[in-house]
Amino acid sequence: MGKQNINTIGVMTSGGDAPGMNAALRAVVRASIYNGLNCKGIRLGYQGLIEDNIFSMGPRSVSNIINRGGTILKTARSKEFTTKEGRKKAYENLKKNGIDALVVIGGDGSFTGAKIFSEEHDVKVIGIPGTIDNDIFGTDFTIGYDTALNTVINAIDKIRDTAQSHNRVFFVEVMGRDAGFIALNSGIACGAQDILIPERKDKIEEMFDSMERGRKTGKLSSIIVVAEGEELGGVYDLAKFTKIKYPDYDIRVTVLGHIQRGGDPSCADRVLASRLGIAAVEGLLQGKTRVMAGVRSNKIVFTPIEEAIQKHNEIDQELIKVSDILAR
Amino acid sequence: MGKQNINTIGVMTSGGDAPGMNAALRAVVRASIYNGLNCKGIRLGYQGLIEDNIFSMGPRSVSNIINRGGTILKTARSKEFTTKEGRKKAYENLKKNGIDALVVIGGDGSFTGAKIFSEEHDVKVIGIPGTIDNDIFGTDFTIGYDTALNTVINAIDKIRDTAQSHNRVFFVEVMGRDAGFIALNSGIACGAQDILIPERKDKIEEMFDSMERGRKTGKLSSIIVVAEGEELGGVYDLAKFTKIKYPDYDIRVTVLGHIQRGGDPSCADRVLASRLGIAAVEGLLQGKTRVMAGVRSNKIVFTPIEEAIQKHNEIDQELIKVSDILAR
Amino acid sequence: MGKQNINTIGVMTSGGDAPGMNAALRAVVRASIYNGLNCKGIRLGYQGLIEDNIFSMGPRSVSNIINRGGTILKTARSKEFTTKEGRKKAYENLKKNGIDALVVIGGDGSFTGAKIFSEEHDVKVIGIPGTIDNDIFGTDFTIGYDTALNTVINAIDKIRDTAQSHNRVFFVEVMGRDAGFIALNSGIACGAQDILIPERKDKIEEMFDSMERGRKTGKLSSIIVVAEGEELGGVYDLAKFTKIKYPDYDIRVTVLGHIQRGGDPSCADRVLASRLGIAAVEGLLQGKTRVMAGVRSNKIVFTPIEEAIQKHNEIDQELIKVSDILAR
Amino acid sequence: MGKQNINTIGVMTSGGDAPGMNAALRAVVRASIYNGLNCKGIRLGYQGLIEDNIFSMGPRSVSNIINRGGTILKTARSKEFTTKEGRKKAYENLKKNGIDALVVIGGDGSFTGAKIFSEEHDVKVIGIPGTIDNDIFGTDFTIGYDTALNTVINAIDKIRDTAQSHNRVFFVEVMGRDAGFIALNSGIACGAQDILIPERKDKIEEMFDSMERGRKTGKLSSIIVVAEGEELGGVYDLAKFTKIKYPDYDIRVTVLGHIQRGGDPSCADRVLASRLGIAAVEGLLQGKTRVMAGVRSNKIVFTPIEEAIQKHNEIDQELIKVSDILAR
Repeated sequence: MGKQNINTIGVMTSGGDAPGMNAALRAVVRASIYNGLNCKGIRLGYQGLIEDNIFSMGPRSVSNIINRGGTILKTARSKEFTTKEGRKKAYENLKKNGIDALVVIGGDGSFTGAKIFSEEHDVKVIGIPGTIDNDIFGTDFTIGYDTALNTVINAIDKIRDTAQSHNRVFFVEVMGRDAGFIALNSGIACGAQDILIPERKDKIEEMFDSMERGRKTGKLSSIIVVAEGEELGGVYDLAKFTKIKYPDYDIRVTVLGHIQRGGDPSCADRVLASRLGIAAVEGLLQGKTRVMAGVRSNKIVFTPIEEAIQKHNEIDQELIKVSDILAR
Repeated sequence: MGKQNINTIGVMTSGGDAPGMNAALRAVVRASIYNGLNCKGIRLGYQGLIEDNIFSMGPRSVSNIINRGGTILKTARSKEFTTKEGRKKAYENLKKNGIDALVVIGGDGSFTGAKIFSEEHDVKVIGIPGTIDNDIFGTDFTIGYDTALNTVINAIDKIRDTAQSHNRVFFVEVMGRDAGFIALNSGIACGAQDILIPERKDKIEEMFDSMERGRKTGKLSSIIVVAEGEELGGVYDLAKFTKIKYPDYDIRVTVLGHIQRGGDPSCADRVLASRLGIAAVEGLLQGKTRVMAGVRSNKIVFTPIEEAIQKHNEIDQELIKVSDILAR
Repeated sequence: MGKQNINTIGVMTSGGDAPGMNAALRAVVRASIYNGLNCKGIRLGYQGLIEDNIFSMGPRSVSNIINRGGTILKTARSKEFTTKEGRKKAYENLKKNGIDALVVIGGDGSFTGAKIFSEEHDVKVIGIPGTIDNDIFGTDFTIGYDTALNTVINAIDKIRDTAQSHNRVFFVEVMGRDAGFIALNSGIACGAQDILIPERKDKIEEMFDSMERGRKTGKLSSIIVVAEGEELGGVYDLAKFTKIKYPDYDIRVTVLGHIQRGGDPSCADRVLASRLGIAAVEGLLQGKTRVMAGVRSNKIVFTPIEEAIQKHNEIDQELIKVSDILAR
Repeated sequence: MGKQNINTIGVMTSGGDAPGMNAALRAVVRASIYNGLNCKGIRLGYQGLIEDNIFSMGPRSVSNIINRGGTILKTARSKEFTTKEGRKKAYENLKKNGIDALVVIGGDGSFTGAKIFSEEHDVKVIGIPGTIDNDIFGTDFTIGYDTALNTVINAIDKIRDTAQSHNRVFFVEVMGRDAGFIALNSGIACGAQDILIPERKDKIEEMFDSMERGRKTGKLSSIIVVAEGEELGGVYDLAKFTKIKYPDYDIRVTVLGHIQRGGDPSCADRVLASRLGIAAVEGLLQGKTRVMAGVRSNKIVFTPIEEAIQKHNEIDQELIKVSDILAR
């Protein structure tokens, strides 16, 4: 029996998948082994816990996954786990498999589940933030966010080729229902003429102003990046309004969609995931529970999982100013 | 004055842009210089000819563009050129600029314009097939097609990461309004469960059969690739019908859109474009006109531009069988 | 028992690995199943056959490999197989595993082994050309070649960024000990100032001439692509001689090395591999043996394996001219 | 005349090029214009200043460069600038062009030049850290570092394909003569069996221990990442020693070389460069001089340029432990 009475760690990925989840899983497995513990993988998130979809993992079971997108444990959303009965089944399977502590790699929905489960059944649990949206409090970056940014800019770079060739205006919708991190950073990185995000209550007139400013300096084509959660009515409506205002513009719309969730993880995401996977195991061994492992100012920090769920990272006002200054 | 009384060649890109157009342009310019001719670039296609948007090009004006998507000459569709008056203006600018022969890099719409213009004003003209759709008769491959295929499979590879992580069914719409080349080849390359193309009058039942066949062998996620021109009602309707038939499937739709037109050209497209650009200039010097330069069985061939417009490459039946055999 | 008394097909990858080998393997497995046959995988090439490293493959055992570089069957060179005793052991394992026919995915070394083995023990065998070098007679393209070309040009595009920023001359060595296909095509695609290949007996003076020609038109940086098999003394000597001739040049050398063998296969390679894998199985069922499946003018063809070994694809003289014309 | 008596800002890139330098340049130009200043570009670093290779830049002169590697201003090392006479010439050209303050994008060599120049001639100067090596004190990240990391891991991922296919051991040399940041992070991200960096005085026995540990858990192939500045004798010697110790290992060496300097900048690098470019201009307007703009804990900070030159970022010991734990 290891320190803190932990002998076996269970690990799952839950909620939406994100590039780097496999790297985090690998780190959890290898850090467990390094610390003399057993590690068991739980497939398909909480639903797999309920259905006893659980298996032992050794060092080689996570070979050659650090560079793969998605998650080899798969992920799912589980209605049953939102019920008391479901969580009871999950707990019984935890005991049956000798799992003493749980590492949950996912987003805030998954952490809410972890928190309730942990309180109800006194299960030790640590969360690892895995989501492309970067909208989790307690860490400067979530796993998958950096990769998604690079996927988005590579896509917009391609769109820019065709925008320039035709002197077109492109509205590009990127992910981020509640948070504009992807839109703001990718928009700056692609030289967007304007960036519409939920955190900034733009008026459509400001977008038109920006477009006219660009036009005056000789800009012939432009890209407007729109977060899916912005509130002016969606990317197609924006295009429509713009066409009414500027009938001579050649306007196109592209919704990037699910390509943003996949792809080989970037170096930053692989390293972040590796660090957080180890930190989660070491946190459990130090007696931590109901916390999330994160990175702030490049240091590992643990945040109460409740706080991680309730609070939100705020958009950096400096970046908004950067985007304004550069859209000339 | 060069052979065939050609002293100055004009070159334009026209219609939809395609990766590799810059490489073709570079080859036209350098082959002109190599043969002791002048070369003039015409911006924005036929519209630029009408508006006298024409400039001299030397060897350095095409430096460092071979690896760039889009077209530095830009492209446009011109309503005015569809009128007799417009073409007259275009012809006058041709004369004014001393252009003796025209190279048009574009698709069949652009070739139709070239043909009429050439007949009306006795202008020497050669076409180079530049379009991602590969739907032009007289060449095994069009410039941009290979790049678009790689862009599509890279996108679907990313989608596959998330499809697998969630055991999902994805309907992915790719370009190809009249031709299923992109869908068929990318579908095979991504291991699609089914591929819906305009050339094959599928019944939706066959798609369901294929999905059930995959399921029986244990397939948990799958990708259906759909050409935008298929005739079952569009990718969203397909998803809807499938959801009705299989309510337990977790179904998602992605429309790849304009990212397919951009991006750095692949090696094959750069080499193809380089060859065709040279061939066009040499064809003109050999007295050819109203033809399209293409590659068949890896040899340069010239096809009457009329034939290139009217006939169509047929989908290879072997490939359709390949897709059926592999979707197990 | 199937047609031609074939019930079970064995498949291996042999020699150097190439991107697309997995796609070919997948096609062999699924085409076998489609035709009612069993399929067994042999690990580590002929050595695995000798060591009975053989296992049954079903449709799911090749899931999600079509997009992966390398080979899940692994590959090796086997000294033992070059001996009569080794081949006898191999044959016994073939019989023991009920394998009636063999598909060998590899290069000419592997095909030579297959030929001898087949003659000695009357084993049915079909080869599939898998090598990045494109140096196998009987097919227009080998599996892996197109991917390697794209890997090479992406690397050289990066080198070009730094070459231009510093006004430097770069000598870049690419693979191709006996054949200049990679060098010639990637050199054209990257706008190389000169391309040195084994097939062309360049004199170093011609290289200097080309460099001076570029300089005269204002070229400040340049790339010289060198096939590893060229005969002027290797990339480092070339750089040294150039430095002696032009002491003011800022010269750098890069050897691309093994990155050229890996990477996710391109669309063209995945489709080619899929076609050839199916063709090999169907060829065996039609009674073919001691042949290689290839593609010529986009049609499946079978070439006697002896011919595939002895003859060689010749470098296209048109391409050499293309490279000369464009290096202005 | 603007605030702080600054009317015109001069900007140059100096030393080794790095991806993101163009994005920084674009930000300097546009931030100058935003603040009502003029901006002049200086080509080829200090040498261009000496040779009066200086031109005015407007908002469109930096269009469509944010996504390009290298530097459109080009860069060079200048012997003349190391002399008093050279710097006097440079100063005269500065005055002649009406440049009131200088932004130098480069590494510590360039900053040393800036410091001496600034002291000698009372020139206002701010540095922006642009180098892939991440070895500059006063910023958490240098411009180009994140891109280089992704370039390295993409290359090693390819090498891994072939390493696995052959059960090989690969020694991969990456850049970083004085600093192991690239090696350590890319090594973690690629699951390297061992990572040799200048900061850690490894003994070769420890490397052998690590290799044996991996072997015992069933690892058949492995990657050893080596920083070019490590002190065991270079990557070729390491391979040789290893071959002596383990004659049965199939060992290969790859030196990644100059591909690490090029390529389209990553999202993180484009955003970092954009922020620092603006910060440099605003810093000058606030009266700052002889400082470097950097980012620490995601906030803009200014560090005396002397400190930036003399001090060094230290390798994070946590990361070294991460690499040890994960190499199982």
